[in-house]
Amino acid sequence: MKSLLEQCKSLKNASFSLGSLGTKAKNDALLSVAEALANRENQILEANLIDVESAEKSGMKSSLVDRLRLTSERMKDMISGIETVVSLKDPVWNSRDVWTLENGITVSKMSVPMGVISIIYESRPNVTIDAFTLALKSGNAILLRGSSSAINSNKALVEAVKEGLRKSRISPDVIELVEDTDRAVVGELLHMTEYLDLVIPRGGAGLIKYVTENAKVPTIETGVGNCHVFVDESADLHMALAIVENAKIQRPGVCNAIETILVHKSAASQFLPRLKNKIGDRVELRGCERTAAFIDVIPADELDWATEYLDYILAVKIVDSCDEAISHINRYGTKHSESIITNDLANSRKFQRNIDAAAVYVNASTRFTDGGAMGFGAEMGISTQKMHARGPMGLNELVTIKYVMNGDGQIRE
Amino acid sequence: MKSLLEQCKSLKNASFSLGSLGTKAKNDALLSVAEALANRENQILEANLIDVESAEKSGMKSSLVDRLRLTSERMKDMISGIETVVSLKDPVWNSRDVWTLENGITVSKMSVPMGVISIIYESRPNVTIDAFTLALKSGNAILLRGSSSAINSNKALVEAVKEGLRKSRISPDVIELVEDTDRAVVGELLHMTEYLDLVIPRGGAGLIKYVTENAKVPTIETGVGNCHVFVDESADLHMALAIVENAKIQRPGVCNAIETILVHKSAASQFLPRLKNKIGDRVELRGCERTAAFIDVIPADELDWATEYLDYILAVKIVDSCDEAISHINRYGTKHSESIITNDLANSRKFQRNIDAAAVYVNASTRFTDGGAMGFGAEMGISTQKMHARGPMGLNELVTIKYVMNGDGQIRE
Repeated sequence: MKSLLEQCKSLKNASFSLGSLGTKAKNDALLSVAEALANRENQILEANLIDVESAEKSGMKSSLVDRLRLTSERMKDMISGIETVVSLKDPVWNSRDVWTLENGITVSKMSVPMGVISIIYESRPNVTIDAFTLALKSGNAILLRGSSSAINSNKALVEAVKEGLRKSRISPDVIELVEDTDRAVVGELLHMTEYLDLVIPRGGAGLIKYVTENAKVPTIETGVGNCHVFVDESADLHMALAIVENAKIQRPGVCNAIETILVHKSAASQFLPRLKNKIGDRVELRGCERTAAFIDVIPADELDWATEYLDYILAVKIVDSCDEAISHINRYGTKHSESIITNDLANSRKFQRNIDAAAVYVNASTRFTDGGAMGFGAEMGISTQKMHARGPMGLNELVTIKYVMNGDGQIRE
Repeated sequence: MKSLLEQCKSLKNASFSLGSLGTKAKNDALLSVAEALANRENQILEANLIDVESAEKSGMKSSLVDRLRLTSERMKDMISGIETVVSLKDPVWNSRDVWTLENGITVSKMSVPMGVISIIYESRPNVTIDAFTLALKSGNAILLRGSSSAINSNKALVEAVKEGLRKSRISPDVIELVEDTDRAVVGELLHMTEYLDLVIPRGGAGLIKYVTENAKVPTIETGVGNCHVFVDESADLHMALAIVENAKIQRPGVCNAIETILVHKSAASQFLPRLKNKIGDRVELRGCERTAAFIDVIPADELDWATEYLDYILAVKIVDSCDEAISHINRYGTKHSESIITNDLANSRKFQRNIDAAAVYVNASTRFTDGGAMGFGAEMGISTQKMHARGPMGLNELVTIKYVMNGDGQIRE
């Protein structure tokens, strides 16, 4: 077993040649990996069964065991995910900015790979393949650190990837899995500034906080979503109900689901009873004092405004104006996805301009903030910070730029 | 005197309204600031004199005292710098990507301000005005932390800025100067993640290292430049000499000056004596063993390859190939600016593709890597990292993006 430092050095080394490869070499390698995964399905499912059984034995919640489990069906999804990425436009060595300086030097601002990307993630083994696929297509080497509960699955998957790469023009050294499941190794990884260009945490709030607080390697904060819908005075209430139901219930455990709704005081008497009627049997409503005047709710306190429930719970607050809704969201939100339901043009414009978030919606569910839904094909995570990438990180967010300067002897006066 | 926390809260608050202002409001405010600076010239120069005299008394090196000194001429340069930024295109609320999803939601990827930017810098007081100007034009509030040696100058400058803003439509709360000159306050600033969206260190290697190692706020590493020129076998040696001289000597104390040249073994016997002849009287040459076979040099060791001299010293190394030059630069360089002098098309292409740096030149001096020379009008610093911004950071590097999503009731299936 290579040490972490050896893995990092080897990845950095492998990354230098990756950057200049053409699209065909990368796509051929990805298809070869897809084939190796299909060929090794039995071995992979057997390794996964070890993880699943030991997770069950350890008393892991069944919803988490389900995320860990691989099936023939899920293997097929993984492989079709690779095929999707093969079909996407190569994000490397493109430019939309080429200009010539007064002195005749031509400058191209070209997209280039980052180098070595690391991802630290939780139990879902398909992330292993998704992350590798996005990294390779964007010309990056990748260091994977999955959950210890998925270690056998991940080993089998990475072996298959390396087998696929061996049959291609790309070195198997472009992917490494951290096999040491000791937590201390994550701390070590976060300090590998000489070798890692970017580290992305993908998982729960605890993991993300740990990584952003301890990383010396540049990192991107992902995924925590305390999202809101604001039902404005002029909202189409039928539309508002459908959107609130969808954004809360369609998949409550994801980051782009909503946690609080803000209701304009003039819409409250009409909207709240209909809301209670529509979702009250499935969702626990926690309301402010003014809400309690219209419907039965559990009293909400300030902690509710700041909580990402990820559950069948919805906080409800009545506000006096669009401005108050904007202030509330900018104060308690996590800069992920926010939506206004309105027919007031000025308010829609103000909301979209003044809310500080990755995605700001008018008259639509917040559930569309992800790489798949937005047409990116796949994603590495959803950034909730403002540096480098904001929102879903697809292939175009995994590259940096380089100024390519061509002259014929220019010197500076 | 406001506490740092009070300043941060007030800036964050002021930043929310800045983001939706149109270009005219920002330009008018900048011109009003320019006028206030002109009106208060005497007060500012008097305050600066206090700093200069106390710096001289403390025995500060005269080159540093010179950087600290303001004159009527330098005040005019500052003001004309503001006018340049007024003339630049507003970087906010533009999009080059607008598309419509299958379900009819229209997505615009819009440029928006970061929010609150902080800059930590050394003695030059003109940075106070440059940084404010770039921040305001890009819709950001700014927290300034200059050197304690320039505190009186910076106070007077910021007072003038606030006076100018008071006569405009923009709140004077968009700029704050940290007046506490205790170093501990920098540590505190670097942890203000709730209020600061970005912190940029601008100064020597020590400052940059301290900030990047201690910041919890997202930061951009700037300015350290261990840059190279590679004189290839096919180089026009006359051109190579002129470029090496320019890149080393024109201004040796700046980050885009070169520190080491790599010479192809086949060019060494012709090139090295001419180099010695051309710059040997002004520049100390430190060479590898093979170099010493052609010209008198001080022996270079590995430390020389890794050193940013910022002085009249140049390290010289003979290499066997373009590949060796690329490996050397990727190993010892700081990812800033690198140049190949060649007439070999394949080598020029390989060098530009495989060198990992912000700017990679063919047949030109590395001295052009700055915002002014590249046509950005002004810059906040030069990024040597890969996240978010790489190379000179002008107005377009001080913004992030927001996905503006417009629908008519769409929910996720």
